[in-house]
Amino acid sequence: MINVAILGFGVVGSGVAEVLTQNKGIIEKKLGKEVNIKYILDLRDFPGNPFESKVVHDFNIILNDPEVSIVAEMMGGSHPAYDFSKAALEAGKSVVTSNKEVVANFGAELISIAKAHNVAYLFEASVGGGIPIIRPMCNDLASNNICEISGILNGTTNYILTKMTAEGIPFETVLKDAQDKGYAERNPAADVEGLDAARKIVILAALAFGKAISPNSIHVEGITSITTEDVELAAALGYSVKLTGHAKKTEDGKILAMVSPRLIPVSAPLSSINDVFNGILLNGDMVGQVMFYGPGAGKLPTASAVCADIVDVIAHVESGIKLPDYTVANDDDVACFESYSCKRMFVSDSAVALEGTLANVTNRVSCDKCDLTAVITEEMTEKEAQAALVAISGAKMYRVL
Amino acid sequence: MINVAILGFGVVGSGVAEVLTQNKGIIEKKLGKEVNIKYILDLRDFPGNPFESKVVHDFNIILNDPEVSIVAEMMGGSHPAYDFSKAALEAGKSVVTSNKEVVANFGAELISIAKAHNVAYLFEASVGGGIPIIRPMCNDLASNNICEISGILNGTTNYILTKMTAEGIPFETVLKDAQDKGYAERNPAADVEGLDAARKIVILAALAFGKAISPNSIHVEGITSITTEDVELAAALGYSVKLTGHAKKTEDGKILAMVSPRLIPVSAPLSSINDVFNGILLNGDMVGQVMFYGPGAGKLPTASAVCADIVDVIAHVESGIKLPDYTVANDDDVACFESYSCKRMFVSDSAVALEGTLANVTNRVSCDKCDLTAVITEEMTEKEAQAALVAISGAKMYRVL
Repeated sequence: MINVAILGFGVVGSGVAEVLTQNKGIIEKKLGKEVNIKYILDLRDFPGNPFESKVVHDFNIILNDPEVSIVAEMMGGSHPAYDFSKAALEAGKSVVTSNKEVVANFGAELISIAKAHNVAYLFEASVGGGIPIIRPMCNDLASNNICEISGILNGTTNYILTKMTAEGIPFETVLKDAQDKGYAERNPAADVEGLDAARKIVILAALAFGKAISPNSIHVEGITSITTEDVELAAALGYSVKLTGHAKKTEDGKILAMVSPRLIPVSAPLSSINDVFNGILLNGDMVGQVMFYGPGAGKLPTASAVCADIVDVIAHVESGIKLPDYTVANDDDVACFESYSCKRMFVSDSAVALEGTLANVTNRVSCDKCDLTAVITEEMTEKEAQAALVAISGAKMYRVL
Repeated sequence: MINVAILGFGVVGSGVAEVLTQNKGIIEKKLGKEVNIKYILDLRDFPGNPFESKVVHDFNIILNDPEVSIVAEMMGGSHPAYDFSKAALEAGKSVVTSNKEVVANFGAELISIAKAHNVAYLFEASVGGGIPIIRPMCNDLASNNICEISGILNGTTNYILTKMTAEGIPFETVLKDAQDKGYAERNPAADVEGLDAARKIVILAALAFGKAISPNSIHVEGITSITTEDVELAAALGYSVKLTGHAKKTEDGKILAMVSPRLIPVSAPLSSINDVFNGILLNGDMVGQVMFYGPGAGKLPTASAVCADIVDVIAHVESGIKLPDYTVANDDDVACFESYSCKRMFVSDSAVALEGTLANVTNRVSCDKCDLTAVITEEMTEKEAQAALVAISGAKMYRVL
């Protein structure tokens, strides 16, 4: 029998308890072993809950119980989640987590502690919710150099942009609707300003390129300034507007990562990822382009990914599990954002200013009712784009995939 | 050093040699071991090829060499591929393969031989080419009951249907174009009549439901009778026409699998899988819907998947690799196709006959230039649908996803 302790009995934590209970049969058939939830750590009590008797309030009970071999951390936030994870690993317990904040900020350190203690630190659920992405990238694409990653990594913002596109409803109105439906937090900043997606893209970049860069060190733009007019103009030019995380290795071996709204051609696979779904596109030098699609959040989908890690630990930890392999990046590993080059869409109320400033326009559209013009340019660098934005008073700029 | 023998130096076999050579560095970094191609079995010689010196014509050289621990079978066809695979497993060598014909017909037996000899039989490349699908389904969705699988599993037919849809070109013309481009075989029967997709859906069904049913025992329809008029009518009703493999467990625990053209709502993720790409949608009871998208065939993508299996074998076989777990189905395990129920599209030149025969029509469209009418019905069984086809002389029927 394998004893698991759940840290945090919120949405995902209670989902993990539900999955382990409801699909006990198929999990134990796969493993040939019983999986038992021994403790649930939470500040609250849960009177009447079927798991009430498992609830403890002191992490040391878990840490000091040698029968607990796996800790599933679903507390959220950096502290005490990081501290508890570190202590558990140092005590020889494997840790699995959905906590992207801890993984993005402390993943390299926690992996290295896990290796030193012959246990596992796995975090499939930290990116893409229930979507299998981390294990497939590390195992199924093991013979590939991953060249580029583009992903719709945040369900809340994708829901908002889908609604803005399909129904022409402004950002603020859709956000309120999303909050009412429980798709957006009361404080939506981490989602709508792009930080959540930034944490996820740096995790994927670390796995793909071997270096963990800080989510605070990359260019991050959210969706708060996107208007329905911008979305309509993009659609008229053949693009969907999506909030994407984007990472690649530059020719000189540095890592470029960013989060920003991006225009996706409507024929591209990422363009059809709507509502709260996520989609992650990987480019490997041998496989070409593969995409993983599914529910990027939610109680049971995220719990499904956490439980996959639990199964993996139980199946493989004794014989030496393969952990992701990356180290903390230093400043030299990070590419200069100013030289990042891509096609762009500029939007302005002055068609004359657009055409006069941008030498390399390939496509244009005007909106009669809103009096705006949008143009698509050939590839230009961030530096050039920022200069153009200064020259065209009041203009907006979107990157194109 | 791990010695690998490649059986069959055709498209995929030479791709495996290329991946192992070109990405030797990243593979060996992952494994901490050198991977060496010791032999390549083929009937032909390859004078001037960099791998010329590895080529042998006698399988017994490989079989009797104790230094060879992994055999990568990319010969195609059932024999001698099955026989060589069986002999290799019995000699204590792990086998990895892209050969869907062998896996679909003999997978359960070969897995059981592998288990008896503590080696592996892995076949990630047999479904979906380079797309990670088998390992993610078995590992990442390990805590799920897989309820249903729908997949665009054949790139050739998807290319043909995409062209028919986008450009209104008839089947025969597009097929010839696909043959000229190398996307379709000179003898295209296995692709266009659905057998290739049938092999793949029974492999996925075996992994999901634990029972391998024969590809010859399921309902298989190809795309040869689809007309551009049918595709246009479907589009007017809001659907794409795709050749899909479909498998699910019925309420009484039996397995229902089929291959047929299917109408996919244009808003559904499978609808945007175009050209030679494949897409596989899985429904898990915990995760919900996830989709895997990518190149379903091709030299390097398929080789990428074979090499992932090679890496997996090397990383895990000594400590006891987890193999897929299924047995051969008997007749009782297979659901009765007649009772399969879904929405349908009927096409006829008589709107009166359609409306008179089908009681449950929800949507209709007529084509002025081709004088045909198409209607969408509520769910009806195969038995009911076949009766309607008899009653409406000359009508055609499509299933709706």
